[in-house]
Amino acid sequence: MNWPGVIEAYRPYLPFDADAPVVTLNEGNTPLIHAPRLAEQIAPRGGLQLYLKYEGLNPTGSFKDRGMTAAISRAVQEGAETVICASTGNTAASAAAYAARAGLRCLVLVPQGKIALGKLAASLAYGAEVISIDGSFDDGLRMVREITERRADSRRPIALVNSVNPWRLEGQKTGAFEIVDQLGGQAPDWHCLPVGNAGNISAYWLGYKQYAKGLPRLLGGQAAGAAPIVLGRVVEKPETLATAIRIGNPARWRQAVEALDESGGIITAVSDEDILEAWRLLARVEGVFVEPASATGLAALRQQIALGEIDPAGRTAVVVLTGHGLKDPGTAVEQAAAPITLKAEIEALERYLRG
Amino acid sequence: MNWPGVIEAYRPYLPFDADAPVVTLNEGNTPLIHAPRLAEQIAPRGGLQLYLKYEGLNPTGSFKDRGMTAAISRAVQEGAETVICASTGNTAASAAAYAARAGLRCLVLVPQGKIALGKLAASLAYGAEVISIDGSFDDGLRMVREITERRADSRRPIALVNSVNPWRLEGQKTGAFEIVDQLGGQAPDWHCLPVGNAGNISAYWLGYKQYAKGLPRLLGGQAAGAAPIVLGRVVEKPETLATAIRIGNPARWRQAVEALDESGGIITAVSDEDILEAWRLLARVEGVFVEPASATGLAALRQQIALGEIDPAGRTAVVVLTGHGLKDPGTAVEQAAAPITLKAEIEALERYLRG
Ligand SMILES: Cc1ncc(COP(=O)(O)O)c(C=O)c1O
Ligand SMILES: Cc1ncc(COP(=O)(O)O)c(C=O)c1O
Repeated sequence: MNWPGVIEAYRPYLPFDADAPVVTLNEGNTPLIHAPRLAEQIAPRGGLQLYLKYEGLNPTGSFKDRGMTAAISRAVQEGAETVICASTGNTAASAAAYAARAGLRCLVLVPQGKIALGKLAASLAYGAEVISIDGSFDDGLRMVREITERRADSRRPIALVNSVNPWRLEGQKTGAFEIVDQLGGQAPDWHCLPVGNAGNISAYWLGYKQYAKGLPRLLGGQAAGAAPIVLGRVVEKPETLATAIRIGNPARWRQAVEALDESGGIITAVSDEDILEAWRLLARVEGVFVEPASATGLAALRQQIALGEIDPAGRTAVVVLTGHGLKDPGTAVEQAAAPITLKAEIEALERYLRG
Repeated sequence: MNWPGVIEAYRPYLPFDADAPVVTLNEGNTPLIHAPRLAEQIAPRGGLQLYLKYEGLNPTGSFKDRGMTAAISRAVQEGAETVICASTGNTAASAAAYAARAGLRCLVLVPQGKIALGKLAASLAYGAEVISIDGSFDDGLRMVREITERRADSRRPIALVNSVNPWRLEGQKTGAFEIVDQLGGQAPDWHCLPVGNAGNISAYWLGYKQYAKGLPRLLGGQAAGAAPIVLGRVVEKPETLATAIRIGNPARWRQAVEALDESGGIITAVSDEDILEAWRLLARVEGVFVEPASATGLAALRQQIALGEIDPAGRTAVVVLTGHGLKDPGTAVEQAAAPITLKAEIEALERYLRG
């Protein structure tokens, strides 16, 4: 069997007709990795069943590909020739790849100096026009909304592929479908993930409601310096080293709050330090390398267990790891020990090994 | 169904007992992407069925994970506490990840300044001891062979996890199994891939012979500056921007030549320029981002079709894309157009769009 990508795999559950064009890179079908050693670290003798949904193994290295196959497929059906988005980097790379595959022009707006190297490199390699603005993600989102509205009735409309585009959420729902399938038909007790623009948490909730027997409780993590939903107010100057969730005014704010309420969930802020500690644990204890933002769901789960707000006993938790560590090699090099330098001689290696 | 990794998925075809310990990151199960637009570019109206086996979507971003799950599982069974390898970077990252998952100490020797940023960053993040030597990959391989032999009978043996380790090839065979399964039980007509140390081409051939109805012809590509098998002699100072295959004295040389002969295959040298052109085509025409070395199989196929050595008419070719583009963001930034800088104002964007 050749996995055909998320639209073909879940077409009965998605609003795509049988004859709608599909632009796919065979995204989805990502591993659900059992993590007993990590469970023992964050909940010692706690009886927690912990699973990592490794979304960094999508074609462009993040979960964004699930939504992008849907948004670009739809843009092609509507005859668009150009697509645009604002991005902290992952949406940019994903839009660039699917636009290339479809033969569309692609413009991406990114906050200058604030996106990780891998995301920039990929967007450029895919041939997108990468526009670096001297403002934030939120500024970029305002700009692309405005420009697409201005051209809505022109002969050359531009398709907006940010997660305000409802097709993005339709595609992203499939993450929930897969988790349920991988757990043998059940939803987990807790579903943990980072929250930036809040598209992903909204999409997962739609997905679980549509597909699962039983529903999970949602646990959203925001970076302490970019936690508008936790604080209940817009953050004018969001700051966090988790650049992917450096967002002060989430587009899907209300929908996320509704999802959290309906699920009996929790949204919490975690410090950059706690994000990095979770990031380290993932790589060193389980061999799973993620970009910093992607560790925020685990940081939130660890925090809530430590605080006694979540009782791990006999529970199943799925932590969504939203992007690959290769997206942000700079942070990894900064945070880890430096390489050791040796002469290319066996005796040098002997001396090193003897300590 | 939750994909359990390559050992569980193909256990009847692999030398692992039912009770052997398995260290897995649920590797394998990578997409086989149909690439009709790219086929049209490299063989205009040629009737070529072209598929891309995107091995960059393994957990650490390269095909090495298939072999590493086998080698590390075996090292655990044998009671090893430390593993070692020499690497152009991808083996290092993979060994580091699987060792972390298994709780083993891991040492990796890499040629100083000659491995791509993503590979270094990942190896460090996984907590390996990265040893940078002032020599080549071939020097490193000599050193790790020697050190593991010296300790073979000690109380603390060190397991060598380079592809001279036969378990590596056992795991890597599963790439061939998957391609056959994904093509509905058939081998392709041509199987195209880069050749460095020649472990992968040897493993694929073992896999096809064991599993397929009908056999493919192998097409191996070497970088012109590091083409010992093509030249028939050791290359003392291999040079290529495709750092992953910058190898002058392949460990699996003889086995690769036998595989090529048996299959009626071809091994050819391609210039760095041709590698980069293939790399560009993959990203821009199909939205598939790979590291430069990984484009060598496509460069070889394109060359052989252009030379008339391969007739594409009605043929199926699978091109193995061995590692993700995010492994080497530096080359991508160098090779692509620079970002455009704009003020965060709608009118600046309007002016840009008007040209
Ligand atoms: C790696 C990563 N994690 C998490 C998020 C947050 O997702 P959302 O914006 O849908 O809340 C993003 C969004 O950019 C991301 O790139
Ligand atoms: C990305 C990539 N492609 C190709 C190869 C070549 O594989 P082999 O050394 O098994 O010939 C390697 C090996 O390091 C690699 O890392």
